Amino acid sequence: MNHFLAPTDLTHAEREAVLNRAIELKALKRPLDRTTLRVGALFFNASLRTRISFEKAAEVIGGTCLTLNTGSDTYKMEMDPEAAMNADTQENIVEAAGVLGRMFDIIGVRSFPTGQAWEIEKTEPILRAFAEHSGVPVVSLEGALHHPCQGLADHLTMKEHFGETKKLKVAMTWAPHPKPLPMAVPNSFALQSALAGCDLTIVRPEGYDLDPEVMASIESESAAAGGSVEVTSNRDLGLEGAKVVYVKSWGRMDHPGQSADASLADWTFGDSAWEMTDQAKVMHCLPVRRNVVISSSILDSDRSIVLDEAENRLWAQAGLLDHISKGVQK
Amino acid sequence: MNHFLAPTDLTHAEREAVLNRAIELKALKRPLDRTTLRVGALFFNASLRTRISFEKAAEVIGGTCLTLNTGSDTYKMEMDPEAAMNADTQENIVEAAGVLGRMFDIIGVRSFPTGQAWEIEKTEPILRAFAEHSGVPVVSLEGALHHPCQGLADHLTMKEHFGETKKLKVAMTWAPHPKPLPMAVPNSFALQSALAGCDLTIVRPEGYDLDPEVMASIESESAAAGGSVEVTSNRDLGLEGAKVVYVKSWGRMDHPGQSADASLADWTFGDSAWEMTDQAKVMHCLPVRRNVVISSSILDSDRSIVLDEAENRLWAQAGLLDHISKGVQK
Amino acid sequence: MNHFLAPTDLTHAEREAVLNRAIELKALKRPLDRTTLRVGALFFNASLRTRISFEKAAEVIGGTCLTLNTGSDTYKMEMDPEAAMNADTQENIVEAAGVLGRMFDIIGVRSFPTGQAWEIEKTEPILRAFAEHSGVPVVSLEGALHHPCQGLADHLTMKEHFGETKKLKVAMTWAPHPKPLPMAVPNSFALQSALAGCDLTIVRPEGYDLDPEVMASIESESAAAGGSVEVTSNRDLGLEGAKVVYVKSWGRMDHPGQSADASLADWTFGDSAWEMTDQAKVMHCLPVRRNVVISSSILDSDRSIVLDEAENRLWAQAGLLDHISKGVQK
Repeated sequence: MNHFLAPTDLTHAEREAVLNRAIELKALKRPLDRTTLRVGALFFNASLRTRISFEKAAEVIGGTCLTLNTGSDTYKMEMDPEAAMNADTQENIVEAAGVLGRMFDIIGVRSFPTGQAWEIEKTEPILRAFAEHSGVPVVSLEGALHHPCQGLADHLTMKEHFGETKKLKVAMTWAPHPKPLPMAVPNSFALQSALAGCDLTIVRPEGYDLDPEVMASIESESAAAGGSVEVTSNRDLGLEGAKVVYVKSWGRMDHPGQSADASLADWTFGDSAWEMTDQAKVMHCLPVRRNVVISSSILDSDRSIVLDEAENRLWAQAGLLDHISKGVQK
Repeated sequence: MNHFLAPTDLTHAEREAVLNRAIELKALKRPLDRTTLRVGALFFNASLRTRISFEKAAEVIGGTCLTLNTGSDTYKMEMDPEAAMNADTQENIVEAAGVLGRMFDIIGVRSFPTGQAWEIEKTEPILRAFAEHSGVPVVSLEGALHHPCQGLADHLTMKEHFGETKKLKVAMTWAPHPKPLPMAVPNSFALQSALAGCDLTIVRPEGYDLDPEVMASIESESAAAGGSVEVTSNRDLGLEGAKVVYVKSWGRMDHPGQSADASLADWTFGDSAWEMTDQAKVMHCLPVRRNVVISSSILDSDRSIVLDEAENRLWAQAGLLDHISKGVQK
Repeated sequence: MNHFLAPTDLTHAEREAVLNRAIELKALKRPLDRTTLRVGALFFNASLRTRISFEKAAEVIGGTCLTLNTGSDTYKMEMDPEAAMNADTQENIVEAAGVLGRMFDIIGVRSFPTGQAWEIEKTEPILRAFAEHSGVPVVSLEGALHHPCQGLADHLTMKEHFGETKKLKVAMTWAPHPKPLPMAVPNSFALQSALAGCDLTIVRPEGYDLDPEVMASIESESAAAGGSVEVTSNRDLGLEGAKVVYVKSWGRMDHPGQSADASLADWTFGDSAWEMTDQAKVMHCLPVRRNVVISSSILDSDRSIVLDEAENRLWAQAGLLDHISKGVQK
């Protein structure tokens, strides 16, 4: 079963095939002929880009997509198959996933962290339960640990702008934000850059390290792909020579609910930081807090490729769904 | 006008045709060619299976389906055509239904009981108002008295698993639940089983009788179809020899808001109850409260056919919509 | 770029072409062949008719439409591109519009007044921001100043019922309502009637004048199209000889939050008022408060053409989208 819950769930050959297919589909500018492919998308959390791009991706390859929001569109879900359900949960994930698997050929699920201990969250229990009980391939539309479709779109965007990503000098730089954000996007971008063979520098204040297991995976994949990984808190040094800057905020692992210290406000990515780079293209997954994460001056200039990146969600996912659908035998 | 608000709204010949068409469409494994059929679905109450299966059913026969949730997607509706609407209701059902009838060829409506007296609720005033004012066929997606699409799917599932349903030994057995649930599903299952000619035993604690008018209809249809109906509070006896057990909770008609007495907790359907049957297949409309209504041990075994039943919502509704659409002249 | 934010955003020739195309598509009774046209619809406010009719209009011309409700489906939007977004807004309209422009070929947006000063509201800041930042044509699905798709549907409905609209005697008459309603619909109907060359009488109590700039535009367009405009508070006189009566409530410009005085309750449009007209057809944009705005006796008779009008939303918008899509080069 071809689940896609993390960037490493595709082999190198599969990843190349998916990205090349994405490029073909983007160039084609029209949907493929109608097929029988039925995609479902289940959102435990709000979405703009992901919902639209996933629906449109299914249509591009000739399928249909039906989106459901839990809460308004579904029953309250119980995650424990052995629970005695005499309280407020109404439907067990075993049946919810099982039913979706009878209605759809591929299921996308978004499920952010739900406030449990990180050691539990990082196993993506909800996504894995859908993968286990649905009987069909499950695509993560962002979990606690990874946002692999975003990673794929980021990879596609770098490939599109620079051709070769091997040894491409990329800096992922932390930014302030009023809330301590989850780490799925930085985890996936860093890992995806490693898989792409980039020379990656993670620039972040002390205390803002990624999960050690994720870092270990980034390092080993980077080595295997012929790239490199550095981590620094020296922002000027970290940005030096970068061709791509990926700006992103995230919270501290050791103080999960805590907002960033006001003393870090100058980590907003603006013109003076950009001057440190080698005329870098600036990326962000969106939504972006203007003038807190990235300055308007950059977002409104051609240094920013955030809209290309957002559009590529559609094409990367179309390539992915096309790949996965070929393995679906119904 | 071919409305479908209760199992008896189809003649025997129509029911057979709908079920046979459902079987054909399921075997085909791909949608029919695109038609002009426009289906609309209006939900006054939440849904998972029904929403998905109804949309997919419309697609299977080449049509489209647009789903609306009242509240978030629509204006607050007034049910009295003669009301002076100077308070909080914003749109009269006459216009709401009339407009939907101009936009769609067939309309599905879900409307649970709204807290009025049962003598009013059981007339399905909202469903009937849509039927009266829309000018197009209306399909109940569950009302107060019946859930006829569920009944049709249940019939299809029994036909699929047993071939012949006439004289098939079926037990519908009551189960505990933290809330006093509506009776639309048990009403429709019992009536549909009667229409299918089953030998039906309704197993329930004293005080949990179905509506007397519904019972009268079940008995007369059963006699006409060559089946039989028994009602018992002796669970062991009621389950004996059953080939199908339909487990379902419902509230007391004489104490509508009252939860089941704790002394009935042992009515949960588990392994020991199943041992009384003749290797029965276990059915439930879902969502099911695990280990309160049915034990996990049964749901996770091949004794349970609840997912087949859920999937058959799609195919039964596809057969139904195909049948109704043939009568639509626009 | 062919935005459609006000009735005057089409030239006379374009308006004729759109309406004629609408009539053709309505007569055809089936969708055009599938195209690559991707329409998106973004609702900042609830909708029944508009959502359905806009989706169905896109389908009629072979395209697809994806609807998003802000709030439930999207992030909280910031309207100022230069804001330092460190409070509760999560996504700037620049990026929201930009992303939608990458996913869709045409975008519909509904945005009611948001409680700012009228001089700001009447510039339709949200609609114009989408027009500015999306890079694709934007269609108003109702703003503060205009509801131009409604105007187009009203025009189509009059054309359909009377053939020629030039010199057609039309009265737009104010009606009571529990709330002081926005003026987008009366503005657009009056302006559209002027563009259609009607002999328009606006019948309203003293103090209920339309915005002076809108009135100036109505008068000049009317003169150019060979029609006439009168305004009166004498209801009997104003209705005399009317072939069409458009009933609509709206609030006072000089007391924006104030409900209508109880002394105006007899402005409800009922049988005795209708007797003043020349057997007029009665129109209303819906939803209508029965027996407050228009009597049930009229709505339930063939004097009312409100359902034709609602249905024509679909066909007018199909004509419009077909027109706009021809200008879209992607």
